[in-house]
Amino acid sequence: MTIQTVAVLGGTGAEGSGLALRWAAAGWPIVIGSRVAERAAQAADALRARLGPATVISGRANPDAAAASRLVVLTVPFAAQADTLKSVRDALQPGSILVDCTVPLAAAVGGRATRVLGVPQGSAAQQAQEMVGREVKVVSAFHHVGAEALAALDAPLDTDVLVAGDDRAARETVRALVEAIPGARYVDAGPLENARIVESITALLVGINIRYKVHASGLRFTGLDRRE
Amino acid sequence: MTIQTVAVLGGTGAEGSGLALRWAAAGWPIVIGSRVAERAAQAADALRARLGPATVISGRANPDAAAASRLVVLTVPFAAQADTLKSVRDALQPGSILVDCTVPLAAAVGGRATRVLGVPQGSAAQQAQEMVGREVKVVSAFHHVGAEALAALDAPLDTDVLVAGDDRAARETVRALVEAIPGARYVDAGPLENARIVESITALLVGINIRYKVHASGLRFTGLDRRE
Repeated sequence: MTIQTVAVLGGTGAEGSGLALRWAAAGWPIVIGSRVAERAAQAADALRARLGPATVISGRANPDAAAASRLVVLTVPFAAQADTLKSVRDALQPGSILVDCTVPLAAAVGGRATRVLGVPQGSAAQQAQEMVGREVKVVSAFHHVGAEALAALDAPLDTDVLVAGDDRAARETVRALVEAIPGARYVDAGPLENARIVESITALLVGINIRYKVHASGLRFTGLDRRE
Repeated sequence: MTIQTVAVLGGTGAEGSGLALRWAAAGWPIVIGSRVAERAAQAADALRARLGPATVISGRANPDAAAASRLVVLTVPFAAQADTLKSVRDALQPGSILVDCTVPLAAAVGGRATRVLGVPQGSAAQQAQEMVGREVKVVSAFHHVGAEALAALDAPLDTDVLVAGDDRAARETVRALVEAIPGARYVDAGPLENARIVESITALLVGINIRYKVHASGLRFTGLDRRE
């Protein structure tokens, strides 16, 4: 898989900057996107300061970041998902990949982060697909990878990453993003409609973190190497 | 946790007989329930033949099995869940525990086993709670524990078992059932409303089994022992 520029929309947030940190550390050129270009540039500077001056990273307003890459990752909260997509959809190139990390937690409307909202399209990822049109390939991934774990650059993750999407080639590109993060394993979660299940697992993990008083529980699928 | 008699409704099926096998092997007295008493008795005889003549196991019609225990496990397919519960609800003792293993797979209506149906109450387990009334404590568990893995008595499982329920004491009783099976670990999945998420994970695992050409994928939650 060829390394390519990754635009991380919402990359000033904890989740987005954590993913950008890991991918930049693995040598992927990064464009941080934010609603305000100046904040994106500051976040890029902070990551460059952490990783070293040779790091290829810049910051731009979300539409400019989206236009700069054919691999765009959306890491904003659910409450900001639709507005962000409206602001960038004209900038997305036909054939590009949109990796949607959104989880429709009920916290978006003042409810609990241990519950998911019902989304008319079935899932946040399917809502994204409807908004960006069929020329952009939406892949749902990275929902439950904890921001704190991503920020701890010296420690490998201990989790599988469930990846759902209708386009096989797009899923394979996202596999490379998963495998760029030490300790993360790609698991093929099937078509985009399964994002409904994958997103809800994050709400379950939020509750497990609370009940077990831990910060970053993950999950591993077992038995995948025991072929029939 | 005191060992007590477990009634396994639908215990002539692959999932139910697999659970009964494991619990009987761990010394729990078992009553197999089935729609037809004679088939239940045959299934009990088969398990006794496998485990030895000292095994405490019998077979009865579902209502008689339900009446014989304060710990009742429902392992029928979703299409049979409501009818089975109607047939046994008058036999369930107040204060008893009903462990619901039902997954509302779309296969129940001729659809795919990789999809779940929407259940008006939120989940199959919540439907069960509505049907049996508040005097019976419903706990949702054991959905994705594969029948083949259960039948392979010499091999430990490699999976966590997500347990959701509103009554803490009832969840703890179910913890003992989980821990009676080697290689299974109890994970507290929170209130019964989370059964919606837990049930849907089974559909995801069915799809993963198909895509990875394996028989019994499970899942393990990571980081639960890394307390803050």
